[in-house]
Amino acid sequence: MKQLLDRIIEENRYLTELGKVADYIPALSTANPDDIGVCYIDEKNNLYKSGAYNTKFTIQSISKILTLTLAIMDNGLDRVFEKVGVEGTDEPFNSFVKLDSPNVTKPANPMINAGAIVVTSLIKGDSSNRFQRILDFIRLVTDNDSIGYSEEVYLSEKTTGSRNRAMAYLMSNKGILDGDVEDILDTYFKQCSIEIDVVDLAKIGKFISEGCKGLELSDVSKKELTILLKGILLTSGMYDYSGRYAIEVGIPTKSGVSGGLMGVVPGNRGIGIYSPSLDIHGNSIAGLGIIKSLSKELNLNIFN
Amino acid sequence: MKQLLDRIIEENRYLTELGKVADYIPALSTANPDDIGVCYIDEKNNLYKSGAYNTKFTIQSISKILTLTLAIMDNGLDRVFEKVGVEGTDEPFNSFVKLDSPNVTKPANPMINAGAIVVTSLIKGDSSNRFQRILDFIRLVTDNDSIGYSEEVYLSEKTTGSRNRAMAYLMSNKGILDGDVEDILDTYFKQCSIEIDVVDLAKIGKFISEGCKGLELSDVSKKELTILLKGILLTSGMYDYSGRYAIEVGIPTKSGVSGGLMGVVPGNRGIGIYSPSLDIHGNSIAGLGIIKSLSKELNLNIFN
Amino acid sequence: MKQLLDRIIEENRYLTELGKVADYIPALSTANPDDIGVCYIDEKNNLYKSGAYNTKFTIQSISKILTLTLAIMDNGLDRVFEKVGVEGTDEPFNSFVKLDSPNVTKPANPMINAGAIVVTSLIKGDSSNRFQRILDFIRLVTDNDSIGYSEEVYLSEKTTGSRNRAMAYLMSNKGILDGDVEDILDTYFKQCSIEIDVVDLAKIGKFISEGCKGLELSDVSKKELTILLKGILLTSGMYDYSGRYAIEVGIPTKSGVSGGLMGVVPGNRGIGIYSPSLDIHGNSIAGLGIIKSLSKELNLNIFN
Amino acid sequence: MKQLLDRIIEENRYLTELGKVADYIPALSTANPDDIGVCYIDEKNNLYKSGAYNTKFTIQSISKILTLTLAIMDNGLDRVFEKVGVEGTDEPFNSFVKLDSPNVTKPANPMINAGAIVVTSLIKGDSSNRFQRILDFIRLVTDNDSIGYSEEVYLSEKTTGSRNRAMAYLMSNKGILDGDVEDILDTYFKQCSIEIDVVDLAKIGKFISEGCKGLELSDVSKKELTILLKGILLTSGMYDYSGRYAIEVGIPTKSGVSGGLMGVVPGNRGIGIYSPSLDIHGNSIAGLGIIKSLSKELNLNIFN
Repeated sequence: MKQLLDRIIEENRYLTELGKVADYIPALSTANPDDIGVCYIDEKNNLYKSGAYNTKFTIQSISKILTLTLAIMDNGLDRVFEKVGVEGTDEPFNSFVKLDSPNVTKPANPMINAGAIVVTSLIKGDSSNRFQRILDFIRLVTDNDSIGYSEEVYLSEKTTGSRNRAMAYLMSNKGILDGDVEDILDTYFKQCSIEIDVVDLAKIGKFISEGCKGLELSDVSKKELTILLKGILLTSGMYDYSGRYAIEVGIPTKSGVSGGLMGVVPGNRGIGIYSPSLDIHGNSIAGLGIIKSLSKELNLNIFN
Repeated sequence: MKQLLDRIIEENRYLTELGKVADYIPALSTANPDDIGVCYIDEKNNLYKSGAYNTKFTIQSISKILTLTLAIMDNGLDRVFEKVGVEGTDEPFNSFVKLDSPNVTKPANPMINAGAIVVTSLIKGDSSNRFQRILDFIRLVTDNDSIGYSEEVYLSEKTTGSRNRAMAYLMSNKGILDGDVEDILDTYFKQCSIEIDVVDLAKIGKFISEGCKGLELSDVSKKELTILLKGILLTSGMYDYSGRYAIEVGIPTKSGVSGGLMGVVPGNRGIGIYSPSLDIHGNSIAGLGIIKSLSKELNLNIFN
Repeated sequence: MKQLLDRIIEENRYLTELGKVADYIPALSTANPDDIGVCYIDEKNNLYKSGAYNTKFTIQSISKILTLTLAIMDNGLDRVFEKVGVEGTDEPFNSFVKLDSPNVTKPANPMINAGAIVVTSLIKGDSSNRFQRILDFIRLVTDNDSIGYSEEVYLSEKTTGSRNRAMAYLMSNKGILDGDVEDILDTYFKQCSIEIDVVDLAKIGKFISEGCKGLELSDVSKKELTILLKGILLTSGMYDYSGRYAIEVGIPTKSGVSGGLMGVVPGNRGIGIYSPSLDIHGNSIAGLGIIKSLSKELNLNIFN
Repeated sequence: MKQLLDRIIEENRYLTELGKVADYIPALSTANPDDIGVCYIDEKNNLYKSGAYNTKFTIQSISKILTLTLAIMDNGLDRVFEKVGVEGTDEPFNSFVKLDSPNVTKPANPMINAGAIVVTSLIKGDSSNRFQRILDFIRLVTDNDSIGYSEEVYLSEKTTGSRNRAMAYLMSNKGILDGDVEDILDTYFKQCSIEIDVVDLAKIGKFISEGCKGLELSDVSKKELTILLKGILLTSGMYDYSGRYAIEVGIPTKSGVSGGLMGVVPGNRGIGIYSPSLDIHGNSIAGLGIIKSLSKELNLNIFN
């Protein structure tokens, strides 16, 4: 398995040159485009690592699936999906033009930025401990208490996040987003700045694949929740590339703009990948190549 | 199994009163809203039927998945997906406003009308035998040579299809749709008017689930094609309800406005359902209830 | 005056090289880009001509202001403006994306294509004599019985008019456009193919400037009608360049894609200009320069 | 003249009941819907007042034409219209969905909120004295040094202005708006809170009608500037009702959401009207009736 990972990394390494590291904030632009790391955890809890597996990077949009879980635990399914949809969309992740049309009452899904901001607002707690609860939850799921966040990335996002800010104020104006907008954005920018590595990502994948073991849920069963998380990841986890990804890879996956991929592999398995060079959709370009190869070689496509 | 079907039909019968039979053409509006029929074919080819299983109705949008298969057989994957995308969308099935934005170069997916019209145009043949080839293909897949089409429905669709016509002319203007527009629409309206019953639908579902056995393909393997068809159905088969459906039911399915549902059940199985009363998305309202019950009771959700 | 026209033509001649003759139909693309013609009729009915004043060209969109007049004569103001708005728009002339949004119930104004098609549909008469009535009306206004239409341009427009066709079918679908779509489009394409010269255009301008003398109106006074026509021309006559044109030139004007400009000069005067090289908005590029110069030198700006 | 004003007020008084006082901030909702005030200044500087002529109200959007003048004085025409268009639009005043489309690079015109915010950002000065300059300019134009602003309205606007805030952040993100967003918005909210009465408004109208006498301009002549201001008012001054207003009234006019109307009457005259009950476009409903009557009785329509 380790050799397989090594080989697949090498086979897809050329792709890093076809993409571009995110540069909208300085802290992200300094990532090393040559870094590639993979971690795979199998059903027996064997953990395989290859490449830059201990490079730390910020979790970015991958946090969205965890805040969604927390928001559902706090509010139940009905309350959450009253405020955000579960539909795939062919709009980019940061689109919000549709939010202003008269017949649109909520963001398409919790994986685009607008939807994720709403989800964050639903997490219980006052402004300071809301973020602490998210951090605690990620530590719990990854069994890694050393996880923290990057103050530098957080401050950069906060300063340059005018697009997310526009989106949030529009949703506030339309009654989609309740509460203090700056406060919610503050938590959102912080959650995106949490620093993890590919081992943490693989553990998140395995956690969901195993059925969210250990969570305390009230109005929803763990089975229902797990189906929901997988379904949302498959239909919306890769931005406007989700549809094609569902077919080509067929693994419920979430990507982040820092170059991470977190895959929920059917059969109690998880994958974490890191490679910061991105394609035009904002997905890790070598990461996509690698998970495509893994899906083929290990027969992981859910539609197979 | 037969008893299960009988019971589930009865449990969901009340839903028919909450929906509405399609009335945009007279031929559809005369359907009996009380009709409910189900057919299930298991992995051993046992066929179970219940309710109005021999009521004939027009295939409508369910034809889209078969014309897609034919177009891929005729052109290969690359040529087809150069002309139509594979992305989920939160727009209704008959939306085309996005087609006119400068950076949109193809319909979101082959299951919305705009995409399906493009797919039909890609099927080889002159105008008359193009439709004959579609009909032959459906007869082959269902092993039912008696299948024909309703001249009345076809003529109604042709007369009232100003929205599809607008869509097609816009795509022609933008260079998305090649060929004679009226001719392509003629085939499209005819393919929607093909008459089938739930047994035929279940056979289509089983055919795809079994890996499209018997097809002659050139540039694509049967496995690849099957994954593609299932993936598209799951992410886009139920119009703008697809995302929620993927989670709640988790069976790659196509619906039609006459009230049909065709389910590709994992493990070489197929489902056909008919009940003409529709919900606001244009999906059979009791049909949805029935397939949701079946998915739960038989554990058919792909994310399970 | 004649010398003024000669001089202004020469001063603006260089502009023709900065634009492009319309090429979407062959019949238009053969126009001579060097042709420039101007006709000016003053308050005492003195008529001044310069350059290619007897070159014939098709009237194209300039017909819209005459069909609007005819439709108002046939139906009254209320009925016409129930079906089409009178608002300026920053969308291009052939845009119709807004027509598909749920809260839009009519085209923005009668000068964009969608609005003009609706206006044509409101002209009384069966399909054949509807066009004859338009032709008769133009002959009446210009006092020129030799005016006819170009069969070649008409057939070209008919064949290539997929965008107008899309627009018309969408409006038919939304209940904005009543009647047989192909029949209405046929009249529309024919009205655009009427052949005139700059003298005819100047006469149309003078006719409106003089208060539509000679018309028989029922529910609207000639004064009201004239104000309406001038107002619509000023706010919408030059497509999405109308706002800037209102300020820079300040003369109620209609342009056509064949290179014509028809100006309603305050004080019982009219201007006709022809020069087929167009700018990106679809307006005659040298024509614009010429009318701008005329407005300045003769102090014609309505806001002056 | 005084009697004419008295009569016209009475004739249009019933309209107040058909509209609604703005209620999005408490400070506006307390306006007396029965208040109607008119002031008319003729070419010889005779000043006629009727009704609630000394009721003070906040200037709101009427400030936009004055900040535009100031921005042009500070930057010249080219720099200003590089950042904002001069096109009429059929979108409501607070629309900004189009700002997010890829081919839109500036707001349609300086009279919609998005455009006005950009204009405010162009006024020279640091954040505190930028507002002071606007206030000084209004005092100069109205020759009224007692003009101040309502702290209460300003704070209300600031707190509830999430829609304007969304718009501003989006423009900042797209590079349309330069500078500190909150700081620009602060000035914008303050300028809207300046308190005036109908006499002040009539003076503003007369000032523009007279050709902006007394201004010191560098790159643009007073004549050019005046034509520009009148043209923009006529094509965009009444939000998405501008087109119809241009025809029905034909006076370059700006409205504000507190119920004010400022009319630039051709021939060195000015009108100020106040009546806080609004129609669905956000224009004073009785104010519209009154200015329509005045236009007819005094023959003020520019297209006449």
